Amino acid sequence: MEQYLFGIDVGGTTVKCGLFRRSGELLEKWEIPTRTEENGRQILPDVAVTIRCKIQERNLKKEEIAGVGIGVPGPVMESGEVPGAVNIHWGYKNVAGELTEALNLPVRVGNDANVAALGEMWAGGGRGASNLIMVTLGTGVGGGVIVNGKIVTGAHGAGGEIGHAIMEPAEEEACNCGNRGCLEQYASATGIVRLAKRYLAAEYPDGGTIQAPAWLCAEKLTARDVFDAYKDGDSAAETIVRRFADCLGRAMAFYACVTDPEVFVIGGGVSGAGEPLLEILGRYYRKYAFPACRDAGMVLAKLGNDAGIYGAARLVLCD
Amino acid sequence: MEQYLFGIDVGGTTVKCGLFRRSGELLEKWEIPTRTEENGRQILPDVAVTIRCKIQERNLKKEEIAGVGIGVPGPVMESGEVPGAVNIHWGYKNVAGELTEALNLPVRVGNDANVAALGEMWAGGGRGASNLIMVTLGTGVGGGVIVNGKIVTGAHGAGGEIGHAIMEPAEEEACNCGNRGCLEQYASATGIVRLAKRYLAAEYPDGGTIQAPAWLCAEKLTARDVFDAYKDGDSAAETIVRRFADCLGRAMAFYACVTDPEVFVIGGGVSGAGEPLLEILGRYYRKYAFPACRDAGMVLAKLGNDAGIYGAARLVLCD
Repeated sequence: MEQYLFGIDVGGTTVKCGLFRRSGELLEKWEIPTRTEENGRQILPDVAVTIRCKIQERNLKKEEIAGVGIGVPGPVMESGEVPGAVNIHWGYKNVAGELTEALNLPVRVGNDANVAALGEMWAGGGRGASNLIMVTLGTGVGGGVIVNGKIVTGAHGAGGEIGHAIMEPAEEEACNCGNRGCLEQYASATGIVRLAKRYLAAEYPDGGTIQAPAWLCAEKLTARDVFDAYKDGDSAAETIVRRFADCLGRAMAFYACVTDPEVFVIGGGVSGAGEPLLEILGRYYRKYAFPACRDAGMVLAKLGNDAGIYGAARLVLCD
Repeated sequence: MEQYLFGIDVGGTTVKCGLFRRSGELLEKWEIPTRTEENGRQILPDVAVTIRCKIQERNLKKEEIAGVGIGVPGPVMESGEVPGAVNIHWGYKNVAGELTEALNLPVRVGNDANVAALGEMWAGGGRGASNLIMVTLGTGVGGGVIVNGKIVTGAHGAGGEIGHAIMEPAEEEACNCGNRGCLEQYASATGIVRLAKRYLAAEYPDGGTIQAPAWLCAEKLTARDVFDAYKDGDSAAETIVRRFADCLGRAMAFYACVTDPEVFVIGGGVSGAGEPLLEILGRYYRKYAFPACRDAGMVLAKLGNDAGIYGAARLVLCD
């Protein structure tokens, strides 16, 4: 009986690994370093070695293992090939082919943000739903779209690239992707700081050194500072958080017109703001949502950095 | 061998019916009136009768028939139930249940706009693609989202309700759905006329009776008039069509961030404008699209009013 699954999450500095039961139970997790030198050529061999060692150590039989799922930080084709992944120095790589050959086990490959969404569906905030959208508010805004229990990969591996929805066509600054006015420019951790700095510049043309709240003038202002002030009832923070929530809530209402999810799962560092974040986001989402979609759920991600290994393991069970 | 499929498309005045081969070949099509009286209680029995007659007439054997697909103008749950369909006077109706009982054949039910998208995938403009988005520019803006060859129905039957994406949060007039600034308010046939009237009012505050182009002042101005003038090189029409294309192209770029389709299929009355419409729409789409999605195809729908029966028949082959 194929009762074990491996879930591998390749990041820029470490490769997270997990051994799971088919039920979703995490039996063990560990990490190995990501060797990005020489165009990251050692990364997949290292993954194969650590999996083989774990199989030996636990004395698992081959027929007990359903397969290996792996999430990588780049676009992934349906075939399991990766055209390139900048963070780990990869050019084109046939991930499924290489790993299958090295391990002689079924291998499934997915984009890391998409895979995290699948993990949250399997064992996290979206448990029980088979249609969901995960919105990851980190340095950028990533995401994953799940329809009928499967990742929507898209024709160019860009399914779930929801951070690059254009929210403000009149924006003058460019996003990392080259376009202007992407959601990421307002709703990522960096985007929130940007909104705060814009607020400061507009409301306190003198730089705010005298009258602006001290937290707002801090040189190393973070999104967390903004949310902390918001929770304390600071009115400047309220304005900034409202602008953020208006933009993100409107984007989420837009996504809902496309795939009409049961639930949105909010993850990433910014989601550490917790319930007050969900509350204001829900308010703006409902303001803009098509009536039939207004009662979509909104929950916090639960798996944190483990979402990737959960989702990678779950990939093996998709078809 | 189950080689025949029935495709039924229930509209407000007629029910379109088609008999298909599994290959997608349309063998025959016909219509019956939609009897909306008494809350449309006769509609499904009429459908059952016309199918039974066709089976007799053609002397088909039951085991030769793969099933019956039916598209209805309202939201449809995964179970084949319809909570209500205003245009045909239905309250709740278990469409799959009633028709299966009456015909003793497999029955699949879908929303008419979604089903049309499936039809275009099977035998129309989107042939060969399994990930596509259909945008239907009629009195309103409807649509259908297809992922991996299947309709994205959504948790509330609102998958593909792309006409209600909010494009202009500052809009003051309300959309039929109750929100303000929906795509439908700018990109439907009515929306285009609205853009034209706004242009007239802004550019010719006197009502334009003296200097505005005659076509623009016509009392019964249509979207077709706007596109005809556009093709003639009229500068007012160019401004209006650009506003339309900017709004719709931006919306399509947004959809692409969610499901990253291979191709967009443009249908509905407005698509009669043909290649010049695709050309300007493509230009604005690429302006706003996430780089990886920029080369998504853009084609005209091919099946016209038959998309519904094609798609309904194709529903039977899903799963």
